[in-house]
Amino acid sequence: MTRHEATAQIIAAQQAKGIKWTEIAARVGHSPAWTTAALLGQHAMSAPEAAAATEALGLGPEVALALQSFPMRGSLEDPVPTDATIYRFYELIQVYGPTIKALIHEEFGDGIMSAIDFSMDIERVPDPKGDRVKVTLNGKFLEYKKF
Amino acid sequence: MTRHEATAQIIAAQQAKGIKWTEIAARVGHSPAWTTAALLGQHAMSAPEAAAATEALGLGPEVALALQSFPMRGSLEDPVPTDATIYRFYELIQVYGPTIKALIHEEFGDGIMSAIDFSMDIERVPDPKGDRVKVTLNGKFLEYKKF
Amino acid sequence: MTRHEATAQIIAAQQAKGIKWTEIAARVGHSPAWTTAALLGQHAMSAPEAAAATEALGLGPEVALALQSFPMRGSLEDPVPTDATIYRFYELIQVYGPTIKALIHEEFGDGIMSAIDFSMDIERVPDPKGDRVKVTLNGKFLEYKKF
Amino acid sequence: MTRHEATAQIIAAQQAKGIKWTEIAARVGHSPAWTTAALLGQHAMSAPEAAAATEALGLGPEVALALQSFPMRGSLEDPVPTDATIYRFYELIQVYGPTIKALIHEEFGDGIMSAIDFSMDIERVPDPKGDRVKVTLNGKFLEYKKF
Amino acid sequence: MTRHEATAQIIAAQQAKGIKWTEIAARVGHSPAWTTAALLGQHAMSAPEAAAATEALGLGPEVALALQSFPMRGSLEDPVPTDATIYRFYELIQVYGPTIKALIHEEFGDGIMSAIDFSMDIERVPDPKGDRVKVTLNGKFLEYKKF
Amino acid sequence: MTRHEATAQIIAAQQAKGIKWTEIAARVGHSPAWTTAALLGQHAMSAPEAAAATEALGLGPEVALALQSFPMRGSLEDPVPTDATIYRFYELIQVYGPTIKALIHEEFGDGIMSAIDFSMDIERVPDPKGDRVKVTLNGKFLEYKKF
Amino acid sequence: MTRHEATAQIIAAQQAKGIKWTEIAARVGHSPAWTTAALLGQHAMSAPEAAAATEALGLGPEVALALQSFPMRGSLEDPVPTDATIYRFYELIQVYGPTIKALIHEEFGDGIMSAIDFSMDIERVPDPKGDRVKVTLNGKFLEYKKF
Amino acid sequence: MTRHEATAQIIAAQQAKGIKWTEIAARVGHSPAWTTAALLGQHAMSAPEAAAATEALGLGPEVALALQSFPMRGSLEDPVPTDATIYRFYELIQVYGPTIKALIHEEFGDGIMSAIDFSMDIERVPDPKGDRVKVTLNGKFLEYKKF
Amino acid sequence: MTRHEATAQIIAAQQAKGIKWTEIAARVGHSPAWTTAALLGQHAMSAPEAAAATEALGLGPEVALALQSFPMRGSLEDPVPTDATIYRFYELIQVYGPTIKALIHEEFGDGIMSAIDFSMDIERVPDPKGDRVKVTLNGKFLEYKKF
Amino acid sequence: MTRHEATAQIIAAQQAKGIKWTEIAARVGHSPAWTTAALLGQHAMSAPEAAAATEALGLGPEVALALQSFPMRGSLEDPVPTDATIYRFYELIQVYGPTIKALIHEEFGDGIMSAIDFSMDIERVPDPKGDRVKVTLNGKFLEYKKF
Repeated sequence: MTRHEATAQIIAAQQAKGIKWTEIAARVGHSPAWTTAALLGQHAMSAPEAAAATEALGLGPEVALALQSFPMRGSLEDPVPTDATIYRFYELIQVYGPTIKALIHEEFGDGIMSAIDFSMDIERVPDPKGDRVKVTLNGKFLEYKKF
Repeated sequence: MTRHEATAQIIAAQQAKGIKWTEIAARVGHSPAWTTAALLGQHAMSAPEAAAATEALGLGPEVALALQSFPMRGSLEDPVPTDATIYRFYELIQVYGPTIKALIHEEFGDGIMSAIDFSMDIERVPDPKGDRVKVTLNGKFLEYKKF
Repeated sequence: MTRHEATAQIIAAQQAKGIKWTEIAARVGHSPAWTTAALLGQHAMSAPEAAAATEALGLGPEVALALQSFPMRGSLEDPVPTDATIYRFYELIQVYGPTIKALIHEEFGDGIMSAIDFSMDIERVPDPKGDRVKVTLNGKFLEYKKF
Repeated sequence: MTRHEATAQIIAAQQAKGIKWTEIAARVGHSPAWTTAALLGQHAMSAPEAAAATEALGLGPEVALALQSFPMRGSLEDPVPTDATIYRFYELIQVYGPTIKALIHEEFGDGIMSAIDFSMDIERVPDPKGDRVKVTLNGKFLEYKKF
Repeated sequence: MTRHEATAQIIAAQQAKGIKWTEIAARVGHSPAWTTAALLGQHAMSAPEAAAATEALGLGPEVALALQSFPMRGSLEDPVPTDATIYRFYELIQVYGPTIKALIHEEFGDGIMSAIDFSMDIERVPDPKGDRVKVTLNGKFLEYKKF
Repeated sequence: MTRHEATAQIIAAQQAKGIKWTEIAARVGHSPAWTTAALLGQHAMSAPEAAAATEALGLGPEVALALQSFPMRGSLEDPVPTDATIYRFYELIQVYGPTIKALIHEEFGDGIMSAIDFSMDIERVPDPKGDRVKVTLNGKFLEYKKF
Repeated sequence: MTRHEATAQIIAAQQAKGIKWTEIAARVGHSPAWTTAALLGQHAMSAPEAAAATEALGLGPEVALALQSFPMRGSLEDPVPTDATIYRFYELIQVYGPTIKALIHEEFGDGIMSAIDFSMDIERVPDPKGDRVKVTLNGKFLEYKKF
Repeated sequence: MTRHEATAQIIAAQQAKGIKWTEIAARVGHSPAWTTAALLGQHAMSAPEAAAATEALGLGPEVALALQSFPMRGSLEDPVPTDATIYRFYELIQVYGPTIKALIHEEFGDGIMSAIDFSMDIERVPDPKGDRVKVTLNGKFLEYKKF
Repeated sequence: MTRHEATAQIIAAQQAKGIKWTEIAARVGHSPAWTTAALLGQHAMSAPEAAAATEALGLGPEVALALQSFPMRGSLEDPVPTDATIYRFYELIQVYGPTIKALIHEEFGDGIMSAIDFSMDIERVPDPKGDRVKVTLNGKFLEYKKF
Repeated sequence: MTRHEATAQIIAAQQAKGIKWTEIAARVGHSPAWTTAALLGQHAMSAPEAAAATEALGLGPEVALALQSFPMRGSLEDPVPTDATIYRFYELIQVYGPTIKALIHEEFGDGIMSAIDFSMDIERVPDPKGDRVKVTLNGKFLEYKKF
């Protein structure tokens, strides 16, 4: 079973069982963001994590095995995403990309925010004018090494 | 003076004067992220904001006028950014795009995080294993209206 | 059943039964534009809406379930559409895009017309020189928030 | 003077004089949408129209001459626009393109909405929950001729 | 049966039976160009036309039904065609596109040759130095309407 | 003087003098289509042809020299043209490309219509329902040689 | 059987039988280059040629029929080939394209080397420093006709 | 002086002086193909070669210096060339690319024809039915090394 | 069995058996890099190599046969890889491409590092601050031949 | 002075003075690879490093200032490089990308080789069959953090 096939079965099972991503994450023992990304084919799980996830979804051992493989990362069909919910984040890079770069360099010097030593959190912030989505990206600063 | 010419003068003046983006932001009265984005050609300033910014940078009234124009947004030369500091954010969308979508829908229903009614903050988080970059994205949830 | 498979079954059923999109919309209780877009895989229906739609089309509960999933939006195979009926709308953006932007900014200030808090209507306007297609786009103005 | 140079002068003059596109349109005698599109390099003006426009903008006869040339249409730098205000209209085609096609065919048969025998109107619709942008597209239905 | 499946069956049947496109066109009652385009998935047929075509090809009623659907037009796999016979026509646009535009505008004013109210004819012109292909494109001139 | 600079001067002179492409063609002694394409940078002229053209346009000998150079052909800025008048011809290839191929092969066997041993004519066809543009493409059939 | 399916069967049979392309070519009666190109889906064979080829490969009459169809030419999956052996020829066009153009024009005047009235030969040239591949391209010069 | 500027001066001088590429090649002491490619910015010359070339063209020492720089190779503006004379060679790769690969592998085993240890020759082959262009590509076979 | 199918079976078998790439390489008798690339569809094996590999993986003779075919090289789905582990190497070309070119030319003169007469090694370098990946690329220098 | 302008001056000065990149690197006090990359616009230098570099090149303080700015990284004009010396490295990713990924994961687990905490070395390896280019890439392994 390829990783793509496993992802398709996972999405189908999640919808059919009506189980929430956050519930599966609780069972797996990681954050909703990491767990959902792993289930959608972007991270490799350990054997116990994969077992917990597939048990929650009612899926078999081949899916659990596939979840432990190292995935070929990348989940967009096109360089520019077409789905509005995802596109807005691409738009933020179009508007704020050089700003983020300028402010990171100003504060830290030449380097990057790691996308590997990284965590992400998505929260709902109640607001009388309409609740807000708060996404926190947290990555280690990595300095360009001179050599 | 076009907006692009104004941006080029602003970058040159900022480097020549050695003034920080955060200092200009303090003078303009907005966050570093919004102010830097405006100065890099992505937002329109009010007349007083533009005056404060150009005074801080030692630039003339044509730049101030240009800063008040509505910019054609978009700051990447290619659909996929090549600069490593910016690319890492694009990579996050490749890895976490569908995850963000799934978790927003699970929590809020069908809709998006607004990139217009939106704010962003970049912080340094001290950490003994290496300081971290924390980027907070905060946008109003907008629900798809059925009609 | 994936959303794509559901869409394929819906199109086949609509043609085989000869039922009009507007008739299904009337049964679903929404406008033809919203309903057709949902049936073509671009919006999520509620359970009763999905039930009404699949009943009208003579399709089963798996299709109804799929219609309630949050779709990955985007219906064009290529960035530039090739079908003439759809292309003409892309051409309008090529010709009028900056004009629309200039007039929205002139009237409202810096911001956008929402594509989320949005409705659309398509009408036939009788005309002795040839009937006309009238498409009305109606979206909430969203002002760029300074922060 | 090329058409591109004329457009650049027009944008600069419009901003410097602080004259509104709608005011120029009133002087030219056409709608704001058509006039602005012509001034932004997408339509050819007659000699009197060009004279009225350049007079309003305080520009010389070479600009007026350029405005009478037949422009090479197309105003987007990339196939997918990056500016948020313009992008939302592209997004509407991604979401509603096949829907518009289906409803036009259902109502009129096989054919298109003309983008040539066409008019457009942009209005502000007051709304207590936030004013709305209403864009009306009105084009002659053209039936595919069998031959 | 989707339109693509119908097209595949039609091509297979045409080759297997050895029937000419021009013969099918004669039975359908339209020109070879229109009829072949319809059979290759680019036009919608009426019920009698579809019946005549499928009878000529020995195909069943599902193909006839599919031929009556409104196709998603566009028959090239890539924006630039790779097949030499088709590419030469693309090359003509590369070489003569602005020339055609200049001469149409000079003769008719601002507007286009319709690709909808349009007919095409392909003829063999005997020539002692080698027979020639003559392709005649005939479309209604559509004038850009000022509004 | 590069060929591009010569083309720019020619377009400017043609507009400033108000001379028609067809008039220049008559002086050059070739068809309007060939002459206009040459003047727009797509064909090489002989010395007498270039002299006649530049005399008609009131341009100097450097332009005449440039007109005799072998141009790098290709006049579209993008693979898919954005100008509506030119795009319609691209659309015809999208709709009729495989049809043209099928009918050429059916009539002539395996080969192409030459785009080199080729002529083109653009005519106005009066029609009470609206005059028509008639474009005739005439190219030698070239048979694929087996070897 | 589509042409693509025939090509797949041919490649499989050629490998399974261990028969050389040059041997099949000898049986078909054409050069290795033409014959291999035809077998790989780029040329149409006559009935006897197709019979000889399929007999050599041990394939059935449906493959022979498919080999007689006029193929949609073009064998690269991407505009720029990725396979090293094929890429080197693309690289030659990147390095020598304008050189070939300049030398053809200098020797012959304005025109092209035909890719239709064309033959190709691939030889092994023994060389003590390492044998060499010699590819000879031979095409009729076609002069641009003025009209 | 950049290499691009040198190339532009060389092309202008070659046209203004009416000197042939083959004549310059004779003076430089290399083949027309190599010399022309070098002059068009694709190869580095030695000092004496550059001196001979610039003397023949009447150009100064800065051009000679630029000709000795190592150029950034690649002479096409787009991945797919638009000029017909160059495009035909791209078309040959589309048609014969996998054929060349198959025949090289059959004769030599796994490897490539070098584009570095390579020479090219362009000849005119008289033919009563029309003279022919003969392009000979000659590159060392390089075998993939197993390691 | 196509090479792609063989690759899919190999990946599945490698995961199911839990055998390491380096172990298979030891059995095949080549380096891990060459062997893994061959198993992933990028190199042709000899019959004994293919037998050793398929025996190690528990796969049948059709896979062994496919492993001996000359593959169409190229393993990225897009010109720019999306997987982070692979992308970093692409990023290195973006940052160091012209540097590598400059230093090779400075040391060796005009030429390239061969990707054919080439070997690669991947090692783990222990480091108290975190182990390091060391990738050694070793290719024969090939000098551009003047001709 | 923009970073691009500084790079252009540096390349011109390096060629005019005939100073080697490795000599400048020795003066700057870093490796040839890092120094050349910085001089070609891909890294930020400290003030003393920039002073040493510009002194070696005979350039002024504005260049030294520009060298201290944080560059927008990315040095390829197109996603796929066209220069042969650079392309070969891109080809290596096409052939060995998934292999490198597989072997890194097998040895280290899920993660990447850092392109930030990274060094590179280019050496000449004498070889009687032709000297070789040895490029060593050395980056810290970064493990994907679960969160």
